[in-house]
Amino acid sequence: MAESVNVIGAGLVGCLAAIALAKRDFEVTLFDYRQDPRLETTKDRNLRSINLAISARGITSLEFVDEQISQRVLKNMIPMRGRMIHDLAGNQESQDYGLFGECINSIDRSVLNNNLLDEVDRFSNIHVKFGHKLSRVDFSREKQTCVFTTDAKEQKSYDADFVVGCDGAYSTTRSQMQREVRMDYSQEYIDCCYIELYIPPAETQDATFGSFVMSPNHLHIWPRHNFMLIALANGDGSFTSTFFGPWSLVESLDSRTKIEEFLKCNFSDALDVMGHKNAVDAFERNPRGALMCVECKPYHVDQGRAIILGDAAHSMVPFYGQGMNCGFEDVKVLMRLLDAHPQDRAAVFAEYSLNRHEDLVSIIKLAKDNYKEMSHGVTSRLYLIRKKLDTLLGKWLKDKWLPLYTMVSFKADIPYHKAILTEQRQKRILAYIQAVILATLPIGGLGLYKIIRKTLKNYRK
Amino acid sequence: MAESVNVIGAGLVGCLAAIALAKRDFEVTLFDYRQDPRLETTKDRNLRSINLAISARGITSLEFVDEQISQRVLKNMIPMRGRMIHDLAGNQESQDYGLFGECINSIDRSVLNNNLLDEVDRFSNIHVKFGHKLSRVDFSREKQTCVFTTDAKEQKSYDADFVVGCDGAYSTTRSQMQREVRMDYSQEYIDCCYIELYIPPAETQDATFGSFVMSPNHLHIWPRHNFMLIALANGDGSFTSTFFGPWSLVESLDSRTKIEEFLKCNFSDALDVMGHKNAVDAFERNPRGALMCVECKPYHVDQGRAIILGDAAHSMVPFYGQGMNCGFEDVKVLMRLLDAHPQDRAAVFAEYSLNRHEDLVSIIKLAKDNYKEMSHGVTSRLYLIRKKLDTLLGKWLKDKWLPLYTMVSFKADIPYHKAILTEQRQKRILAYIQAVILATLPIGGLGLYKIIRKTLKNYRK
Repeated sequence: MAESVNVIGAGLVGCLAAIALAKRDFEVTLFDYRQDPRLETTKDRNLRSINLAISARGITSLEFVDEQISQRVLKNMIPMRGRMIHDLAGNQESQDYGLFGECINSIDRSVLNNNLLDEVDRFSNIHVKFGHKLSRVDFSREKQTCVFTTDAKEQKSYDADFVVGCDGAYSTTRSQMQREVRMDYSQEYIDCCYIELYIPPAETQDATFGSFVMSPNHLHIWPRHNFMLIALANGDGSFTSTFFGPWSLVESLDSRTKIEEFLKCNFSDALDVMGHKNAVDAFERNPRGALMCVECKPYHVDQGRAIILGDAAHSMVPFYGQGMNCGFEDVKVLMRLLDAHPQDRAAVFAEYSLNRHEDLVSIIKLAKDNYKEMSHGVTSRLYLIRKKLDTLLGKWLKDKWLPLYTMVSFKADIPYHKAILTEQRQKRILAYIQAVILATLPIGGLGLYKIIRKTLKNYRK
Repeated sequence: MAESVNVIGAGLVGCLAAIALAKRDFEVTLFDYRQDPRLETTKDRNLRSINLAISARGITSLEFVDEQISQRVLKNMIPMRGRMIHDLAGNQESQDYGLFGECINSIDRSVLNNNLLDEVDRFSNIHVKFGHKLSRVDFSREKQTCVFTTDAKEQKSYDADFVVGCDGAYSTTRSQMQREVRMDYSQEYIDCCYIELYIPPAETQDATFGSFVMSPNHLHIWPRHNFMLIALANGDGSFTSTFFGPWSLVESLDSRTKIEEFLKCNFSDALDVMGHKNAVDAFERNPRGALMCVECKPYHVDQGRAIILGDAAHSMVPFYGQGMNCGFEDVKVLMRLLDAHPQDRAAVFAEYSLNRHEDLVSIIKLAKDNYKEMSHGVTSRLYLIRKKLDTLLGKWLKDKWLPLYTMVSFKADIPYHKAILTEQRQKRILAYIQAVILATLPIGGLGLYKIIRKTLKNYRK
């Protein structure tokens, strides 16, 4: 008889895990506390999504699970070739993500989730239970009993051979596992609040951008040092925009006048395309989200009884665009281990915990550090010089010199922790080159710098 | 009308907090999930206590709350002037804790807890509810509603103006506060298991130690590098002994033969006074405890609605003997702030969170570091030389040079984080002196070292 698994959470990672397990002949039951998001009655946008950017790790992991499914669920994504930096005067400057035109891709979270749920429905060995909120898991040697409270306030129990928790940053699976396992755990809030805003499609078709009011193929950023605005394109010509800033700043903007003044001073061009009233309404009324990092270890209960994937295991701030990508990669890494040792789930889960940890803490840290880069660094001269040097070396030395962003976003075969190690080595070299240039400045280094600049400009043409 | 407070947890810190608040005319209700531990029916020792050592911070905090109560509840404590190191051959060597004979004090946790509960009973404005397990707290601007499940499986609600959570490392108050507050939180297990053992009183009165089989005025340690045994005297002539070691080691001792062999090889003299059969029984059957550090921040809910004290806010490993002392000090620090601003609880709680954090993370770290010192360092030559130098300087320079242990255990007026700063400065000086001695060794430094040693020996006579 097929072994049974309860997958908790029918979000992005939960759906992919359910599909991957179903393809390996497990009897899967997939639970979610919400109602089916595809129903007309439940189609309220929660306004706390932050748009998604899917890149190589996410895509290759989807492909690893099923190439055809990957193609179908990703059909609406919009490629973004770089950041578009908006300065105070409204000038825009493009900064490419890749050295050779590689793109990350904007996709609406709810569209992707609904697509994945449609795929889930094609499997006869996946049973989906919406409106089931996990309240308890009783672990035992023979079976794992998950107790749910249904929307009708009933208690229902479902047994399975093992549990896969994909229930997000505030995971109940995780807290139930903590009763069984000595789990190191930390959660840390960063002093940053986010508010979702909205840029509607163009009223008349634009010659360059069609139904969009600005380039859909860029991740737009308005960096203002300790706060910022971003915007990612949606398929319908609109942009989902998100404001990030310290809580004290947001709390100080306690009237419509102050909000409008603030937006006008700092994001004048964005305000114009949002519409003044709509922007102020949204800023004032939309929910204010907190940003939290979660780390834990181990990720499993022994004897192959349970494991957590995605945000349940590693919630990170959104500034590297890797949260979902990393969650999808979790599924790939786990399935590869399962494929190698299909008869020994206990060993597979233990090895996953042991080997995955270093990569997960690495990307959590990178994401945290990138807030500084996005909101501040992208505008500093030193940053730009070093970035240009990094790009130059990357183009010149090809696979021998890979900028960090390239490794994280475009090279799915380089584990996160190895990307960091490589970056540290390259940084030492860059610092050395910079020092040499600075030291030789008085004796002609300026000329050298100009040559480098010119070379770079030629490269970019 | 007096303001009301629900104190959650009638352990050591909860009882002291209840008394301190009652003395400030609050209407206190004190809840505990257990039954009254003073009842005959509930007098089962839980065998997971680790005996307590109360030192200056604990004592002065008790005195701050009430001098008379302090005298009554501490009447059975046994002073310990130092560590007694037992080597493999059974030789004992005393290492004083203080420079001038200062002592820490052994006290049985349950005796102290029962004494404090007797004191609680004297207050007409403290209402004690045993058998009430906190399940939820609903915070609101007006009142805080604590929902309990009673032993009879009933749900009962109690409103109060604010909540003080003293419900230990696995605090429900804390997890409920996390629903209301963006709380940074971390828990970390150290790879160390503990098992409580027992050394009975002497069968015949000993000429030196009376009803004890070894000095009651020492904390006995059998340091064996990656594991150790300790023992603290009880009032009745017995010792409570605790074994600490890595989980893998404990799990490898999976038969009575292996356990006895292990104890015989490593703690031969302790085994003799425990009795071979009793020791093996206890090692095999007693519960195995895990050791966890907990840090969090902030410790309160705004508008003065809730605060956590003691292990609920800062669970630490027991190796500096400061867990309870620090919890009692929490009460003192909070009451001092309340006395200074009796009308502004909101500001008091906020200031407590802000200022107490540095001290709490300091002592958590010290406790963790001290495991190494206790199980390993106390036997190393370099450690002993530096310790002697430290002692020499302490005796010579008096209050100008204070060894870390002295600051933490005997100087309640030095906050933990200042103790660490002072220690760091002193360590640099010690390292310098050592370096000078080493550098001058070939040219007479050996003589200098001998002089220092002789001086120290004279001092100790």
